[in-house]
Amino acid sequence: MRRVCIIGCGAIGSLYAAHLARVAEVWAFVRREEHAQALNGQGLTVSGRHNFHVRLHATADASELPDCELAIVATKATQVEESMLLVGCRFSQGAVISAQNGLGSEEIIARATRAQVICGTTFMSGTKHSDTHVQYELDTATWLGPFEPRHTPYALVAEAADLISASGLKAEALRDARPAQWSKLIFNASVNGVSALTELPHSPHFADQSDFSRLGCLLHELIEEGKRVAKAAGVRLEEDPWEMNKIGALTNHPPSMLYDIRRKNPTEIDFLSGAIAREAQRHGVPAPLHSAVYRLIRGKEASWTFPDENKPVATVTDERPDDGAW
Amino acid sequence: MRRVCIIGCGAIGSLYAAHLARVAEVWAFVRREEHAQALNGQGLTVSGRHNFHVRLHATADASELPDCELAIVATKATQVEESMLLVGCRFSQGAVISAQNGLGSEEIIARATRAQVICGTTFMSGTKHSDTHVQYELDTATWLGPFEPRHTPYALVAEAADLISASGLKAEALRDARPAQWSKLIFNASVNGVSALTELPHSPHFADQSDFSRLGCLLHELIEEGKRVAKAAGVRLEEDPWEMNKIGALTNHPPSMLYDIRRKNPTEIDFLSGAIAREAQRHGVPAPLHSAVYRLIRGKEASWTFPDENKPVATVTDERPDDGAW
Repeated sequence: MRRVCIIGCGAIGSLYAAHLARVAEVWAFVRREEHAQALNGQGLTVSGRHNFHVRLHATADASELPDCELAIVATKATQVEESMLLVGCRFSQGAVISAQNGLGSEEIIARATRAQVICGTTFMSGTKHSDTHVQYELDTATWLGPFEPRHTPYALVAEAADLISASGLKAEALRDARPAQWSKLIFNASVNGVSALTELPHSPHFADQSDFSRLGCLLHELIEEGKRVAKAAGVRLEEDPWEMNKIGALTNHPPSMLYDIRRKNPTEIDFLSGAIAREAQRHGVPAPLHSAVYRLIRGKEASWTFPDENKPVATVTDERPDDGAW
Repeated sequence: MRRVCIIGCGAIGSLYAAHLARVAEVWAFVRREEHAQALNGQGLTVSGRHNFHVRLHATADASELPDCELAIVATKATQVEESMLLVGCRFSQGAVISAQNGLGSEEIIARATRAQVICGTTFMSGTKHSDTHVQYELDTATWLGPFEPRHTPYALVAEAADLISASGLKAEALRDARPAQWSKLIFNASVNGVSALTELPHSPHFADQSDFSRLGCLLHELIEEGKRVAKAAGVRLEEDPWEMNKIGALTNHPPSMLYDIRRKNPTEIDFLSGAIAREAQRHGVPAPLHSAVYRLIRGKEASWTFPDENKPVATVTDERPDDGAW
């Protein structure tokens, strides 16, 4: 795997692109032409846990992309379809890793490419300060596993994990991706929905079960419901999502859906609580709480365009770059 | 009943005060001194379905209030305790009507006064344009019934309903207040919570069950859950809350909790979904959805004071008067 394409350079995509550019030829495929020009002209700088600068290729024109042996789709889940339509045919001989939150991106990728598909679940985090500067924060691993419906060979998964490890990031190849993926799915779906609806970041409220009225009780019920769906789907969990939530509650970090709600961007709810609700239906178990969160967020999105003459005029000032863009 | 006190003059309180001033001596007890001065100086004007002007007494000083034979508590549910602490002792020989949304205000009133307590459920509506001008919109009835734990005599309920009817408003005395109260409770709890969390007013979304993702499915489940709690509590419903919701969905009217959320005022959630959750616990049936809405709104209220350094600066312009104030 000597040539790698990173699709989408938000924080996560930029971290993959910069690190992999140290061990392979990297092509970044991005949506905005000026983003590609900046990367081609200035390269990419990493600060934080690692500090270095690399050169790499970048383009917003799919026809300029050479064939690549490995691709990492690092867009938001809501942008996978749009981006893969443009570049899916470039990776027919190789492997494509999904690195989205939640469940469902692999299916979209598998429809758009003849490549092998690898399920990625990443726990690393970063902050994108500009198109050419990303800060590496949590240096936790990316877990990779076969996308079962395509019978992706484990050897290919291991090769991809080795390349990412060689680049300086943490990666682990798993024979079954689902225990890690579902642990993060249940955690993410529960906290993102609650955060987006309450506009609280990860905060002590999320673990507070001191009385009946507390949000910790709801988070606990959402996580238990998610575990019952995982069990019905035959998935063993890698980590306990409630323990993940207790750690998250100490961080005061805004989950990505809170950013989306504040910016009135489409959320990843279809891939989070929506995915849990769909899996519950498929396996014949109830998921009233994740269904409720799913419908409330859908309603919230609908409110942005609903003509409501009583709506007050609001001006929101937010100077940070739109990290999720690909 | 020749002397009546109206506690709180938002839209509903102003409608009671103006109409009753045509058939009784009315004292309005309000929170703000300038509100009392305006009412004393200019009287109260009703427009819309009725058009007239009356003089009445008003005060923000409880010690100025004479003993009254009837009181109508027309504050928001969240303000009942505060207002009744000041005036509860003035009505020992008479009757006090609760006119709040939801369930639980009667108990607070009963603790604060030795008067007879009457459960009121009002479906009328209005818009308060200023401290001295209220527009009468929906001319639907106020339903009155005995507060069972106090064994309020039905004759007293009928007397109060007769006085309100004589004043030009619609009122009906019921031997059991709960079927009407619970119908409105279940409807109100369901739509207020969903509206506050999505920031959609009553809108076609609320009745849309065209696919799994739609808010109408959630509203339907919330209402069904409420009906199961009513059944467990031994309460027969007067009207089907789902039919009430279907009519509401045609209005595009913002429910009161949406105003509260936009203004960052404490909501009535304790008396709505919180009350359904409490009743469910008391009668040993589950209410996961109303519990979820209750906790989410509590979390939303907590977000207003939670120090979140990532929160964008928002300026909300809303020129309408704060209708809910007493």
